[in-house]
Amino acid sequence: MVVELISVGTELLLGNIVNTNAAFLSEQCAALGLSCYYQSVVGDNKERLTGAIQTALNRSDIVILTGGLGPTTDDLTKETAAELMEMPLIMDGHSLERIEVYFKERGLEMTDNNKKQALIPDGAIVLDNDNGTAPGLILEKNGKRLILLPGPPNELHPMFKNSVKSYLASLEDGIIYSRTVKICGMGESKVASMVQDLIDSQTNPTVAPYAKTGEVHLRVTARAKDEKQAQKLVKPVVKELKNRFGADIYTTDPEISLEKAVVDLLVANKLTVSTIESCTGGMLAARLINIPGVSEVFKTGHITYSNKSKRKFVGVKKSTLHKYGAVSEQVAKEMANGCAAITKSDVTVSVTGIAGPDGGSDEKPVGLVYIGCCVCGKTVVKEYHFSGNRAKIRESSVAAALTLMRRCVLEYYSEVTFR
Amino acid sequence: MVVELISVGTELLLGNIVNTNAAFLSEQCAALGLSCYYQSVVGDNKERLTGAIQTALNRSDIVILTGGLGPTTDDLTKETAAELMEMPLIMDGHSLERIEVYFKERGLEMTDNNKKQALIPDGAIVLDNDNGTAPGLILEKNGKRLILLPGPPNELHPMFKNSVKSYLASLEDGIIYSRTVKICGMGESKVASMVQDLIDSQTNPTVAPYAKTGEVHLRVTARAKDEKQAQKLVKPVVKELKNRFGADIYTTDPEISLEKAVVDLLVANKLTVSTIESCTGGMLAARLINIPGVSEVFKTGHITYSNKSKRKFVGVKKSTLHKYGAVSEQVAKEMANGCAAITKSDVTVSVTGIAGPDGGSDEKPVGLVYIGCCVCGKTVVKEYHFSGNRAKIRESSVAAALTLMRRCVLEYYSEVTFR
Repeated sequence: MVVELISVGTELLLGNIVNTNAAFLSEQCAALGLSCYYQSVVGDNKERLTGAIQTALNRSDIVILTGGLGPTTDDLTKETAAELMEMPLIMDGHSLERIEVYFKERGLEMTDNNKKQALIPDGAIVLDNDNGTAPGLILEKNGKRLILLPGPPNELHPMFKNSVKSYLASLEDGIIYSRTVKICGMGESKVASMVQDLIDSQTNPTVAPYAKTGEVHLRVTARAKDEKQAQKLVKPVVKELKNRFGADIYTTDPEISLEKAVVDLLVANKLTVSTIESCTGGMLAARLINIPGVSEVFKTGHITYSNKSKRKFVGVKKSTLHKYGAVSEQVAKEMANGCAAITKSDVTVSVTGIAGPDGGSDEKPVGLVYIGCCVCGKTVVKEYHFSGNRAKIRESSVAAALTLMRRCVLEYYSEVTFR
Repeated sequence: MVVELISVGTELLLGNIVNTNAAFLSEQCAALGLSCYYQSVVGDNKERLTGAIQTALNRSDIVILTGGLGPTTDDLTKETAAELMEMPLIMDGHSLERIEVYFKERGLEMTDNNKKQALIPDGAIVLDNDNGTAPGLILEKNGKRLILLPGPPNELHPMFKNSVKSYLASLEDGIIYSRTVKICGMGESKVASMVQDLIDSQTNPTVAPYAKTGEVHLRVTARAKDEKQAQKLVKPVVKELKNRFGADIYTTDPEISLEKAVVDLLVANKLTVSTIESCTGGMLAARLINIPGVSEVFKTGHITYSNKSKRKFVGVKKSTLHKYGAVSEQVAKEMANGCAAITKSDVTVSVTGIAGPDGGSDEKPVGLVYIGCCVCGKTVVKEYHFSGNRAKIRESSVAAALTLMRRCVLEYYSEVTFR
């Protein structure tokens, strides 16, 4: 089946906000095996919105609209869709009650405008909104389907996952099932070359690579009559990928991020951790601390941006700084070791590099970064050459630091071999 | 004039990347006074791309396409546009030479595919690409205009600012001129209520608010026959806004971010700075360190996530932690003061709060954050209540910390009054 997305909102046409909803829905639909050939954005304007929905209905089976379900007079999506599908608006007692409860629970007064949100196109399927007042709606007629969803991501995402996903899956013959194999510390082209035969030869399941900063995800997707059958198709391919990439795979769980995998590894081994950052200036610690529960293992983070602070806080030697420079293997090593000595942490990670735009030289160009990791007294330092602007170099450094931490802990604790 | 955007790329339809180009171009076009009623996304498919361009040309004066200018066979934008505009492709010597130099400088080999990138539609205006191999192109015919730009943001942004902007401005009778007044530490509804009369009553210039995390930007835009005339229209409105918001305006320069304003203020006053963060876990330091040149003033950052580290590294008293809890005015104060004593920095900032999802209570709910700022021995602590998820609460905390730093430094050094 072919799905098409229409995002409604003048704020998108003015560039005030980035259209993350389209990316979210596209990814979700792709994972369900639906084809999407067009996305579009229109403003809160009845005539243009009508035209956009008509065009979409002519060329696609399912049209998903986001936005324009709010209580104000600007919000026209529901009215426009109802008119086009010839389904007059009627008051929905269930939705009205939910909206009343929503306001009561928050001690807020409900306005007549909010009552308008309980009006639904006659015959529509209502999707409860657990995080706002606008219900989602599915309008079916003559084999065409309009799905109306709220614009705020914190309302859209749970509604999609809880209601829309199973609805879309039920429309297809059989089901789509996918597993994601997440690899860190390898470039996209290397990963792709290692699985090119699988990408080329397979049709069900398919293997597709997705590049992230410092990571590559391989998604294995199968279509089958039921989940059991699909799993049977996917399983040997995932096994083959595990054979090929071994310990460079950090998870096959879609919900687990690289930093979550690292924190889980530290918690599982009861290893405390401290960070010491120069060019990344706290980004590594910030990413670790974004994981709820990190407090079990995170001791302290240090940002020693200046040479003086590198000496004062972790005891990097003046002579080392003088002889090798702040961005050097030796300083990365002394930072990691000094941090371990002072914080008494089991694992310490140091980052020192040149993020640019200034500060580079022929010998030490912008993008040169050293990362050190000390696990229980054993220190490894690696040299990296990243490209891109200041922000990109810092992001790449953080991903590399997480990858190195994971590798050092695994190598210390088990007989794991990396490529 | 009416402009329309088409983003080309299957990776957008699969949700692999977020369409930040559309937001960037929409914002730029809005600032130029161009109306944009539609954005769309199509894949690398000739038939559908042709249809999308035709539809756009029928309803808009200018169509900006991004993506699909690469060297591979997937990349079809140029070929499709040239065919539609009936402008056959010819080899452009100037572009070919630039591409050859690009590869030579990088020590890379140039393939025949790359030569293809120097083909241009006969009669097109060529826009040099300083950051990649695909030149931008402007195709004009019968009063319609197609503008073809590369997809990678690091190529697109400079090309737009250096070439496309002035081209678009030249198409309009007269010019559009805007100034942005950036306000921190005030909510959007409060700012809007303070300028509602200006928003309602003015047509040239117009005043429009844009909300960012912890900031509100007011854009004043005038249309006039030349820049001098436009400035004359804008100036009194900006003056009026300065009267109303006073020191809460941190800049009227579009290139200056809040962290840049804070760093500039510290550099101008020769004040060194150190940070000590709990729930934000390094995000505040990371934002400061994103400003090139911060090394002049930034001494150290500390991330004391655990109670133990708060005691050990900045000497927060055990009794204070016991009596008031880690998230308290008293602890924020001791963190800022302790950091000042240890680092000998002129300015220190502390953040301690509950970012969730766990750890909240009736008395201290998720979103409660204390931020302390010590300037040369004088310490101020403020209490905040932020909403949203863990990431949003942390972001809001960082914006509030920057705002508080700015305010404390200004109040210490000058007779500035804040609302």
